[in-house]
Amino acid sequence: MTDRENSPSGEDSLIARYFRPLATDPGAFNLVDDAAILKASGDDVVVTTDAIVEGVHFLSDDPADMIARKALRVNLSDLAAKGATPAGFVLTLALRAADEAWLTPFAHGLGEDAGLFGCPLLGGDTVSTPGPLMISITAFGRVPPGKMVHRSGAKPGDRVVVTGTIGDAALGLDILRGGAATTALADDAVSKQMLVARYRLPQPRNVLAMAIRDHASAAMDVSDGLAGDLAKLCAASGVSAAIDAPSIPLSAAAATLLARGAVGMEAIVSGGDDYEILCAIPEDSFEAFAQGAGIAGVAVTSIGTIIADTSAPKFLDAQGREIALPRLSYSHF
Amino acid sequence: MTDRENSPSGEDSLIARYFRPLATDPGAFNLVDDAAILKASGDDVVVTTDAIVEGVHFLSDDPADMIARKALRVNLSDLAAKGATPAGFVLTLALRAADEAWLTPFAHGLGEDAGLFGCPLLGGDTVSTPGPLMISITAFGRVPPGKMVHRSGAKPGDRVVVTGTIGDAALGLDILRGGAATTALADDAVSKQMLVARYRLPQPRNVLAMAIRDHASAAMDVSDGLAGDLAKLCAASGVSAAIDAPSIPLSAAAATLLARGAVGMEAIVSGGDDYEILCAIPEDSFEAFAQGAGIAGVAVTSIGTIIADTSAPKFLDAQGREIALPRLSYSHF
Repeated sequence: MTDRENSPSGEDSLIARYFRPLATDPGAFNLVDDAAILKASGDDVVVTTDAIVEGVHFLSDDPADMIARKALRVNLSDLAAKGATPAGFVLTLALRAADEAWLTPFAHGLGEDAGLFGCPLLGGDTVSTPGPLMISITAFGRVPPGKMVHRSGAKPGDRVVVTGTIGDAALGLDILRGGAATTALADDAVSKQMLVARYRLPQPRNVLAMAIRDHASAAMDVSDGLAGDLAKLCAASGVSAAIDAPSIPLSAAAATLLARGAVGMEAIVSGGDDYEILCAIPEDSFEAFAQGAGIAGVAVTSIGTIIADTSAPKFLDAQGREIALPRLSYSHF
Repeated sequence: MTDRENSPSGEDSLIARYFRPLATDPGAFNLVDDAAILKASGDDVVVTTDAIVEGVHFLSDDPADMIARKALRVNLSDLAAKGATPAGFVLTLALRAADEAWLTPFAHGLGEDAGLFGCPLLGGDTVSTPGPLMISITAFGRVPPGKMVHRSGAKPGDRVVVTGTIGDAALGLDILRGGAATTALADDAVSKQMLVARYRLPQPRNVLAMAIRDHASAAMDVSDGLAGDLAKLCAASGVSAAIDAPSIPLSAAAATLLARGAVGMEAIVSGGDDYEILCAIPEDSFEAFAQGAGIAGVAVTSIGTIIADTSAPKFLDAQGREIALPRLSYSHF
């Protein structure tokens, strides 16, 4: 019977059409096998997994290529913070329908970022769901044996350092939701656009991975808010921290919103989605770390000090008064 | 402030309560870090990912511990077919709410199977969703460098071999849906129960991994139906196959349903969820393979021969007539 050729199913054809072009690594076997290979290399394989859900981590009308890039970048950000070099990823995509107008830009954005960050698609699973879109990515990186940077390891006296600027993404989400930042920046379309872009498109700091690996005593990425994530790093390390809030690096737009009283510092340090790196750097390594960051083109800012205490990290204002933080970070449950 | 202790968020507390006890591998770092480690070992790391969705791959009222086991076992089945030894897995869990009555048996079933198959939980992500439950697992196995068994590699003259019995899970699903098998087995509660169990709880053939690695020229697991999966293996290998349908191993219950005319052979070979291994074994390796399978306690059955052709595999009845297969396998789209 002519209809019994080796014709691919709808699912296989979807994979062949949209995702096979992305599977450039030989270990992906062109996505025709049931599994992929990460070749033995003498390195430890660092594994991280992060999922994003429509209506929770992204909005239904966010552009599909941005959703793809965000799904990959939140994982790349974890690899960067662990000092790992990206090696590849697998993708689980739960879709209501195989919608070409959505899948084409999704696959395009994903492929571009896979190339940009040297993190090829190795495999995946595409399933149908009656519910919200969900993209789950498991990403792999490599580090020399025993060299992954942990959350634990921060020591009293270490500097607390962050990359980039903090709070922009949360302000961008506030703007998309028509919150206070929208009104306060009514006259400034450029700033609003920048903040929204920071929400939609994380900039993972993978170029900093080697400097993190060489110099950080502890590191993690800031995904749930600086205050909450710093508390987690401190708890894992059995230490606390004193943060000089005025030192926290802000974009011009965030600084304006803060100056106009549209948002408080507590919103900036407890908003999520920054995808910057938070790390502890021993004092005698800081200069070398800063030099490495400069070469990589990533701004790093010292915002405080690790202290020997078990209470939560303190955020101090210009007068040395503790800033009250009613909500440390975002939690799903 | 006393409410600013290093207290875990709801999400962290959920992970600590239900999943930390499962993270027995040192590379999981007790789930307190952002990533896990697969230690360098000189082996290739085999990576596979499979997701299951409520209402699609399992039913809302399926027992939570069975759902957990199925989510892990469908991945373990891929590792087995690739000849890989399980090394661990990461879990993405999309939940509507943190429901203790569901999470307790879910984590219990998952932990038991992780122990049973030597495949520890390494990490994961728990997200909230307004939609159906979804469990996405990425599992890792190890093989000596270059030794993963592919779908490609089957050669004309190889025997086509399957493990266990075929068709039971699809019949079990039919029973859960009150289909034809229910009526035909109205007098036989034991058979109905067995078939439903085969749908709910795959039995991945990981004990056979070494024999597959040593002897199979090509292999994959049967998840979407024997006919469709054999067509995929043949397409990847650039060959075809002639299958002697009466040789296909059936459970007594499936044989009864076939004899009573309640189902046809086409339903048995195109139903999914078997999670048996389909492989091609060169004739001169078959005896050693069968011996290895016997030691591992897994039934293996030779059902046909790989032939040099590019048409779809043919399923022939006792009279040598080709069986028409209107639908090769299950596809999500």
